Amino acid sequence: MQSIEQLDTPSVLVDLDILERNISRMAERARALGVRLRPHGKTHKVVEIGRMQLAAGAVGLCLAKTGEAEVFAAAGFDDIFIAYPVVGAEKACRLLALTDAVRLCVGVDSLEGARSLAQVFHTARRTLPVRLKVDVGLHRAGVGPEQAAETGRRVADLPGLRLEGVFTHAGQAYHAESPEDVESVGRREGQILADAAAALRAAGLPIESVSVGSTPTARHAMAVAGVTECRPGNYVYHDASQVSLGTCGIEDCALTVLATIVSTPAPGRALVDAGSKSLSSDPLRPRPGGHGWLLGHASRVAWLSEEHGVVEVARGESFRIGDRVRILPNHACVVSNLHDRVLGVRGDRVETELLVAARGQVQ
Amino acid sequence: MQSIEQLDTPSVLVDLDILERNISRMAERARALGVRLRPHGKTHKVVEIGRMQLAAGAVGLCLAKTGEAEVFAAAGFDDIFIAYPVVGAEKACRLLALTDAVRLCVGVDSLEGARSLAQVFHTARRTLPVRLKVDVGLHRAGVGPEQAAETGRRVADLPGLRLEGVFTHAGQAYHAESPEDVESVGRREGQILADAAAALRAAGLPIESVSVGSTPTARHAMAVAGVTECRPGNYVYHDASQVSLGTCGIEDCALTVLATIVSTPAPGRALVDAGSKSLSSDPLRPRPGGHGWLLGHASRVAWLSEEHGVVEVARGESFRIGDRVRILPNHACVVSNLHDRVLGVRGDRVETELLVAARGQVQ
Repeated sequence: MQSIEQLDTPSVLVDLDILERNISRMAERARALGVRLRPHGKTHKVVEIGRMQLAAGAVGLCLAKTGEAEVFAAAGFDDIFIAYPVVGAEKACRLLALTDAVRLCVGVDSLEGARSLAQVFHTARRTLPVRLKVDVGLHRAGVGPEQAAETGRRVADLPGLRLEGVFTHAGQAYHAESPEDVESVGRREGQILADAAAALRAAGLPIESVSVGSTPTARHAMAVAGVTECRPGNYVYHDASQVSLGTCGIEDCALTVLATIVSTPAPGRALVDAGSKSLSSDPLRPRPGGHGWLLGHASRVAWLSEEHGVVEVARGESFRIGDRVRILPNHACVVSNLHDRVLGVRGDRVETELLVAARGQVQ
Repeated sequence: MQSIEQLDTPSVLVDLDILERNISRMAERARALGVRLRPHGKTHKVVEIGRMQLAAGAVGLCLAKTGEAEVFAAAGFDDIFIAYPVVGAEKACRLLALTDAVRLCVGVDSLEGARSLAQVFHTARRTLPVRLKVDVGLHRAGVGPEQAAETGRRVADLPGLRLEGVFTHAGQAYHAESPEDVESVGRREGQILADAAAALRAAGLPIESVSVGSTPTARHAMAVAGVTECRPGNYVYHDASQVSLGTCGIEDCALTVLATIVSTPAPGRALVDAGSKSLSSDPLRPRPGGHGWLLGHASRVAWLSEEHGVVEVARGESFRIGDRVRILPNHACVVSNLHDRVLGVRGDRVETELLVAARGQVQ
């Protein structure tokens, strides 16, 4: 087995011990609360990691894009929820093709969007299970809780669709002021969604799935009575933003970017060979603060250009050209998306190479 | 030929008429000033576009990564400058392999880094041409102008290397206050580098190449006496940041992201199916201002998550689910890097599919 020291840089490392622990902890948490776990595969886009999640007890996968679902379906995943308002005849035809082998469910958040799927499925004399997205405060996609019953009823009336659940994503947790704030967002997320499900059921609609999302809010939203499913994604890897939010410790972060110091052009400044094309330019959450932490150092990546990371060297630290560092990125999901492969490591040994199989599946 | 209307979304479109005009204009500008043009291929990473640049008169390509150079070398490009302080024995061996077929030159900005290349080339009884990077104010990589002669002399003394030039990149232009400020940065860039070259020559070093970079400063830095080469990259595509900096007009922007409105969840808000995994989260330069402009509309992408772009709908505009929009991104270089392919279009017809061949070459 190759040692990390022999790797060229930048390389994305996934600590398999931490990955396995993250996967089993979230599975245990869901099991303890009697909630089904459907991890979001957009974080890793790796078939082998999806299989590990299923082996730990996940009921299936959640994905964002039709193309991602196609990749995982081709790899044998047979229970997929696309948590995204997919619209249009072209994508509906691709969804139709997927339903031969996959128990597929798709998000909707409007009657117009739902209709564009319904037409294709109805014509094909098939039924597509859908879930209605409810906005619990992120103000991105989703119907407001007060419109859920009305939109749900009209969607459920469309031939070709079967409304089987509701879902949400409390992404506003990434802007929370404190761990207490995250908890409050999570509880609210679960409660609003459970209430929306109750309203839909009161309107006569047989809502089965009440599905919450997001790694920071998972433990809180899952604990709300009425929530049946949780779709965290980032928890497999975690990142500097999750640490900053209080979701986990640095020791729970599985994904790092191995980089080399390529220049020390001025006192207090060092350059690594990883820039925004390796680390992404996503900001640190909940508050901006550079572009990555150097593990085992107080120094941080202060700013990025495409292929340079500019390290602000902390007092008392110093780096020499050729030194290797491991950078904990701000946002793991977008880092893995920039790379064709990540390397599974155990200690300082490279154990396996993992293809980021669904990378680049933007459609 | 397929029409744009038939494309699934998101798709990256490259307007070939604009691309060709951008390529020929920059070539003419360099020719008129008697400066060699060596475009930076990191913007497009597309073999066919590199060939168009050569056909228009470019002397060769500039690239950032050894892996990018390998891809272009395999496609037959035989004159490549890696404008990056490549360090370490592993990459030096890869460079050595490249020199069989390529007139290769590599950046250095430190004696230690240079030594790590020199050892490999000296052992192999080969000579690697290198250029010394000079910092003209970005404060990223490069030696200060006052150290250029001393570091240059010591690098030139290393057996296995031949110091053949100096180079710089005035990336601070992306933070300029005004077009006049960009011009001043560009003139200063050219002058400092020409002066550094003169100092090196006065120390007895035969400096041939005096190479400036950056699309916004190109026209100004190229005009400085003593500058022999220019390495703009972004000019093939341009983007909203170049328009904001005054480098070009919107009509000069070749790359857009075709997206679909997938939701109109609230008044004044619409969602497109392109997020940070299609548009990148790079901020608008020189001042932040959302994440992309909708061509033909006053509406802009206000914020992004991974697969959602949240459009703040301008007063008087409205969007319906299923509408197609073309988004001019903040930064074209990182957008093309997120996609396996871009589509060359002429008017509303898709003429060709271009593989982003050097995408993912982070090492």
